[in-house]
Amino acid sequence: MYLEKLKKSNPLVICITNNVVKNFTANGLLALGASPAMSEYEEDLEDLLKVASALLINIGTLTPAKWQLYQNAITIAKKNHVPVVLDPVAAGASRFRLKVSLDLLHHYPITLLRGNASEIAALIGEKQTSKGADSGFVEDIGALARKASTIFSIPVIVTGPVDAIAVNNQVRLIQNGSPLMPLVTGTGCLLGAVLAAFIGLSEEKDYLDCLSEAMLAYNIAGELAQEKASTTGPGSFKVTFLDSLYQIRPHQMKERQRIIND
Amino acid sequence: MYLEKLKKSNPLVICITNNVVKNFTANGLLALGASPAMSEYEEDLEDLLKVASALLINIGTLTPAKWQLYQNAITIAKKNHVPVVLDPVAAGASRFRLKVSLDLLHHYPITLLRGNASEIAALIGEKQTSKGADSGFVEDIGALARKASTIFSIPVIVTGPVDAIAVNNQVRLIQNGSPLMPLVTGTGCLLGAVLAAFIGLSEEKDYLDCLSEAMLAYNIAGELAQEKASTTGPGSFKVTFLDSLYQIRPHQMKERQRIIND
Amino acid sequence: MYLEKLKKSNPLVICITNNVVKNFTANGLLALGASPAMSEYEEDLEDLLKVASALLINIGTLTPAKWQLYQNAITIAKKNHVPVVLDPVAAGASRFRLKVSLDLLHHYPITLLRGNASEIAALIGEKQTSKGADSGFVEDIGALARKASTIFSIPVIVTGPVDAIAVNNQVRLIQNGSPLMPLVTGTGCLLGAVLAAFIGLSEEKDYLDCLSEAMLAYNIAGELAQEKASTTGPGSFKVTFLDSLYQIRPHQMKERQRIIND
Repeated sequence: MYLEKLKKSNPLVICITNNVVKNFTANGLLALGASPAMSEYEEDLEDLLKVASALLINIGTLTPAKWQLYQNAITIAKKNHVPVVLDPVAAGASRFRLKVSLDLLHHYPITLLRGNASEIAALIGEKQTSKGADSGFVEDIGALARKASTIFSIPVIVTGPVDAIAVNNQVRLIQNGSPLMPLVTGTGCLLGAVLAAFIGLSEEKDYLDCLSEAMLAYNIAGELAQEKASTTGPGSFKVTFLDSLYQIRPHQMKERQRIIND
Repeated sequence: MYLEKLKKSNPLVICITNNVVKNFTANGLLALGASPAMSEYEEDLEDLLKVASALLINIGTLTPAKWQLYQNAITIAKKNHVPVVLDPVAAGASRFRLKVSLDLLHHYPITLLRGNASEIAALIGEKQTSKGADSGFVEDIGALARKASTIFSIPVIVTGPVDAIAVNNQVRLIQNGSPLMPLVTGTGCLLGAVLAAFIGLSEEKDYLDCLSEAMLAYNIAGELAQEKASTTGPGSFKVTFLDSLYQIRPHQMKERQRIIND
Repeated sequence: MYLEKLKKSNPLVICITNNVVKNFTANGLLALGASPAMSEYEEDLEDLLKVASALLINIGTLTPAKWQLYQNAITIAKKNHVPVVLDPVAAGASRFRLKVSLDLLHHYPITLLRGNASEIAALIGEKQTSKGADSGFVEDIGALARKASTIFSIPVIVTGPVDAIAVNNQVRLIQNGSPLMPLVTGTGCLLGAVLAAFIGLSEEKDYLDCLSEAMLAYNIAGELAQEKASTTGPGSFKVTFLDSLYQIRPHQMKERQRIIND
């Protein structure tokens, strides 16, 4: 199990992420058992990435200076054989974010791309048409992940009520999680950091299993959190979600996992 | 009711705010039913403000670069007929913040100004003399809001133990809320974002009613949160306050509202 | 008691700190009874530091521009006789952070240095060898604090499972706290801000007692929080820790204090 490996090895995850979610991202990684470090300067990254397990690039609150930072950070990560997760926040809502995301995907070595359906659809030049759990939903998400994975030649995870993991033309669909998760800002951003913590522990040939386990751990922590929250509200849920990331154990994942093979 | 309208329409509120409160602001807007987006670059704002309902400018952790960003963002908002809420954080404590706030108020189209008594007094060149609930307090707050509203020719909200809403020479005073609110950083800043979410739903002629409802929803959520907190402490209160913003319903506002007509 | 003095006088603490912990730092200071202000611009600091009780410099998410800001802020603080606390975050993990920390320690008037063993060891050119509570641990921490205090000629606090306070060749060791504290991001950073709030209330000759009381208040709030948390998890603990900082009273500190005289 990668979850146990993570809790034993405390992988260092360097996070270049947006200012809305830095605290929640650090707390989520700590709760899970990983070790977060935030850095925003190349000279600093040169040292930190030497001992890091993974790098997260999250483009929320993007500026031209950060675009340059992303490029340099990925280059330093590459030099140190550190895998890179890209989270193209709101790439479907702003042409600047789309341009920066595509630049990184086309010209820099990204290991894993994670986004929601609207973001991933924008990156492959499609309009996202499925809205919520309509009849064509599950198939759409799987096809979207597969298509993006083929186009960019890297693993792609599309998240939503159902999550799709596409690796090497294989697609796995997972239907776990809590409807309260989107009501806490940064649950998507933290997931990117969690995926980075997991992928740094895996060899490339095992990415599908490793990423599936990461998605299950995260979403089932969400389910446990919802059950523990004293009241149905996003304030309480955020608290119990961090507790659940700390407390989740492999047997809970086995009992609750809902993998839908495509 | 604007609260129900808000929960149905999920208005997008673009927040240019300080780094202390970005997470809390995003979580508060999500809990209430609005949709937050943070942006710090003009090219990005060009796209986001096309589909936004309102723009918040909060000058905490101000720098000269951000001053320029505020100016450009307001100009883009104006082009898209998006209302702008200005929160002049600590304008009474620093001449730089005062200068920037006055520049925006005098030369840019601000829709609503919200601050505490010390900030609003500084903006109109007065010393704030009332401290807490002294005998002259309620009248002072109302007169301060009215005077600022006349000087800047826009609606002004002055917040404190009693809140005053001044629109077109009318003043409404509201006495709801919890004494725990000032013990959580950013409750004033989040209020600015909540006011932006509400004002984007209203026509100009209905601003007084719309803003009154926003103030009532926010402050009564504070009262409900205080009652729900398992212990009297700001950590617990912050959690239940977010829950209450999610759970508050119109009938609770009707039952608890304490409007003091001036 | 300095704690009571703090709650009565609400000292203003100017925090130049990293974006991961700004919200938690502000909430922690408010809970304790201090008044936080965050600023990132010299012209702003000129006014704020005139009425401030202390300045915190925390070098997390350091950039060259922030290095310049630290230097200027300390100079303004000096001019206003405001004490300065330096938190050299990750100085042991990055040569850039080490260089900046040493520059500030050697060329600027720092009042108090606080770090973990790895950070303080790096600053005095030593490898940190003690890992956790091994046999040589308590003596190591005390010796490390004393050595750094001698080298930099200022009070030094080294934090960990046991904390060492070195002032003028005297060392006090304190063994309070909760193992959940390192699982919440920013508990070290907030401590730096709390030390700043306390040291601003003290004369130089009383620093050892004042800093000891600050460490006891902080760590015993951690113990109380652990007992109050509904479940053993970092999400719940963060909430009850803020509550405990608000609720802690001198008699609890007297009952629980574990001071090990060196």
